[in-house]
Amino acid sequence: MTYCAAIRLKDGMVFASDTRTNAGVDHISTFRKLYQYGVEGERFMVLQTAGSLATSQAVFNKLQSDIDQRAESNLNTVATLFDAAQMVGECMREKMNHAKAVANSSRDGAFTSSFMLGGQIKGQPPELYLIYPEGNCIKATEDTPFFQLGESKYGKPILDRSVSYNTDVRHAARALMLSFDSTIHSNLSVGMPIDFVLYDNDSLALPNGRRIDERDEYFNTIRHQWSDALRRTLVELPKCPDGYWG
Amino acid sequence: MTYCAAIRLKDGMVFASDTRTNAGVDHISTFRKLYQYGVEGERFMVLQTAGSLATSQAVFNKLQSDIDQRAESNLNTVATLFDAAQMVGECMREKMNHAKAVANSSRDGAFTSSFMLGGQIKGQPPELYLIYPEGNCIKATEDTPFFQLGESKYGKPILDRSVSYNTDVRHAARALMLSFDSTIHSNLSVGMPIDFVLYDNDSLALPNGRRIDERDEYFNTIRHQWSDALRRTLVELPKCPDGYWG
Repeated sequence: MTYCAAIRLKDGMVFASDTRTNAGVDHISTFRKLYQYGVEGERFMVLQTAGSLATSQAVFNKLQSDIDQRAESNLNTVATLFDAAQMVGECMREKMNHAKAVANSSRDGAFTSSFMLGGQIKGQPPELYLIYPEGNCIKATEDTPFFQLGESKYGKPILDRSVSYNTDVRHAARALMLSFDSTIHSNLSVGMPIDFVLYDNDSLALPNGRRIDERDEYFNTIRHQWSDALRRTLVELPKCPDGYWG
Repeated sequence: MTYCAAIRLKDGMVFASDTRTNAGVDHISTFRKLYQYGVEGERFMVLQTAGSLATSQAVFNKLQSDIDQRAESNLNTVATLFDAAQMVGECMREKMNHAKAVANSSRDGAFTSSFMLGGQIKGQPPELYLIYPEGNCIKATEDTPFFQLGESKYGKPILDRSVSYNTDVRHAARALMLSFDSTIHSNLSVGMPIDFVLYDNDSLALPNGRRIDERDEYFNTIRHQWSDALRRTLVELPKCPDGYWG
């Protein structure tokens, strides 16, 4: 399984993907599922994936090879983020159809991937797209500032409660760390390390990002503080009135 | 959809079921999905369900009619909770097979239900069973003190964090209320009112239970305090060290 999420805020964007893949619970591996593209000062993009790892890697390879070989249309030349999202969607459908043909299969299901693409091109606003297994896409808005892929439910309540378009980007990053902590706690098939990228809007910088593992001191500090505070808050809630339970 | 959960603790048990059913998002109704059985001072049982409402209601009807008609084997006469769980599982398979035959369908899926049965029979320990759509069942243990059915993921992290076998039963009831609050917040197809039953072990009482709706003062108090505390805790977490995000 996979859990990944991306948030587009007034002042910045945060992207996070776990790195666990599994074929059954007895075949677990670590693979990067978040890649960064761009040109310092010109354009910045992060692409995240969930679904068939083979299809996803075929897409990452094709996109990178188009950049390396300076294909006429590649992630470093497309005019808009929307064009980039369409390129990813079409590339995914092409790779999926190829895999289906090789396998002589009529089912899309086992071969599809989903993607999220976020970033900024100089002179344009920052944007975030969710690219469906069908290859089409939707854009994050002020009303719906975050997207999730994969094992999204365990970690959604904390984002629902604490992230809106005007939330500070570092505050949102902390909420996202806790969202991953909850998910990892509840689903074995989502696992550390987690690849995080934080982007300040209009910086057009290519951040190094951070790979957070079990020994990350800051991550451990906030997840323990969070866990202790939840436990304390629950203990301190008022007792139910007499006769409440009937 | 449905969300229901049941917890078996050292000192008591808590059961909660939402009441929303839906066939698509444009056909939403309110139905009770939690029923109580028993004889004051002798035996206490709560039966909860998720899945096909038609099959579930057929099962509830059959169980009640067997009690009313004093069938040789009914929920008021079975020797153990395990026997009761088996009776429910077998009754469900029978009703499902009948529905499949009427519909001339070969698929189990649309006609199955799941159940949870918990309670206590005089002279025996309190027990809680999860009854699968296949009709077989498992029992809650000290290691795994709660079960959930239906839309379980949004509300699982808070139970994972705060409920263990030795947790106070009223404390666990509050955690379960918040678990429902998170679920309702994230999934439209789970809705108020919520049927709650709290049982003190060895009381062999038949509690009235409580139907919690949007106007329930205590529920609103604790969910607002919880929400405020989460928001405050998140704000008070330490800022990330310089250079953390790379």
